[in-house]
Amino acid sequence: MDRKGCVLWFTGLSGAGKSTLAEAVAKTLRETGHRVEILDGDEVRTNLSKGLGFSKEDRDINIRRIGFVARLLARNGVIAITAAISPYRAIRDEVRADVAKAGAGAGFMEVFMRCPIPVLAERDVKGLYKKALAGEIKNFTGVSDPYEEPLAPEVLVDSSTDSVVQGHQRVLAALRAGGHI
Amino acid sequence: MDRKGCVLWFTGLSGAGKSTLAEAVAKTLRETGHRVEILDGDEVRTNLSKGLGFSKEDRDINIRRIGFVARLLARNGVIAITAAISPYRAIRDEVRADVAKAGAGAGFMEVFMRCPIPVLAERDVKGLYKKALAGEIKNFTGVSDPYEEPLAPEVLVDSSTDSVVQGHQRVLAALRAGGHI
Repeated sequence: MDRKGCVLWFTGLSGAGKSTLAEAVAKTLRETGHRVEILDGDEVRTNLSKGLGFSKEDRDINIRRIGFVARLLARNGVIAITAAISPYRAIRDEVRADVAKAGAGAGFMEVFMRCPIPVLAERDVKGLYKKALAGEIKNFTGVSDPYEEPLAPEVLVDSSTDSVVQGHQRVLAALRAGGHI
Repeated sequence: MDRKGCVLWFTGLSGAGKSTLAEAVAKTLRETGHRVEILDGDEVRTNLSKGLGFSKEDRDINIRRIGFVARLLARNGVIAITAAISPYRAIRDEVRADVAKAGAGAGFMEVFMRCPIPVLAERDVKGLYKKALAGEIKNFTGVSDPYEEPLAPEVLVDSSTDSVVQGHQRVLAALRAGGHI
């Protein structure tokens, strides 16, 4: 099995379900014998970006670092799954272009986890939206900081209406269509 | 071919020949069908560590980041070659321990490129030793900043007496003995 690798780039607001779906997809892929790495936003901040904040500049640097590691993995046949908010379109597109240049036929697929703010504020698993909406958190993406939606993501999942199972099916179908699995 | 990956960690002073030997080894490995990535000190500083300086703390962070990326690659079957000075023993040993914990049987081999300062000052390809010895460069490893030699490197190459071909043979023999090629 010598498949071409791929960067599976999840993007979306905090709480939209990026990590949950990323984990579910990774589990299935591992069970079917694929090489998979998850670069989770928090893990990456610890290992690659300690000291960076949440200004646009620092977010961009963080995303570029994730992109660098992901494309090294992808051009070695790994399905590299990233699950950082990655709010800025230009940087996501830059990462996409860099993956295309990385060689070895590595692919790039953007998975947009869409979810309306009211739904996220209702769920509010970590209690962050309440604080952000009350103005207690600065630079909170979607509330006090921009989120630029993907214009043409390879996969769109609306976590306010789609189940994890439906999202999972959609991502796997896209990977299959792209020849990555 | 589903070999276990490996981190091939070059360490040694600036100008000792780490990158030259790393490139030669990588070329041979690629030609024989192995998955290889080189994480060169300068490339990594650009992509992962922009903004970090050369204090002990910043060097340690830089090395930990290289170690993080290298072990992700190695546990996915890649021979990840690093060529940063990496002057501190404790951090190299920390990276070694983290690779052992990374799973998938990833290996770690330290390649110590030894070269006496007088020989390096004589070569002085980039003109840095002259400046460092004149006190014009602060934190220059081996002159105005410490270099802690490995106590038990898997491979020892003395670039003041060994040719690149000899070093190359020694590294490949070690990889073969370790079952990585």
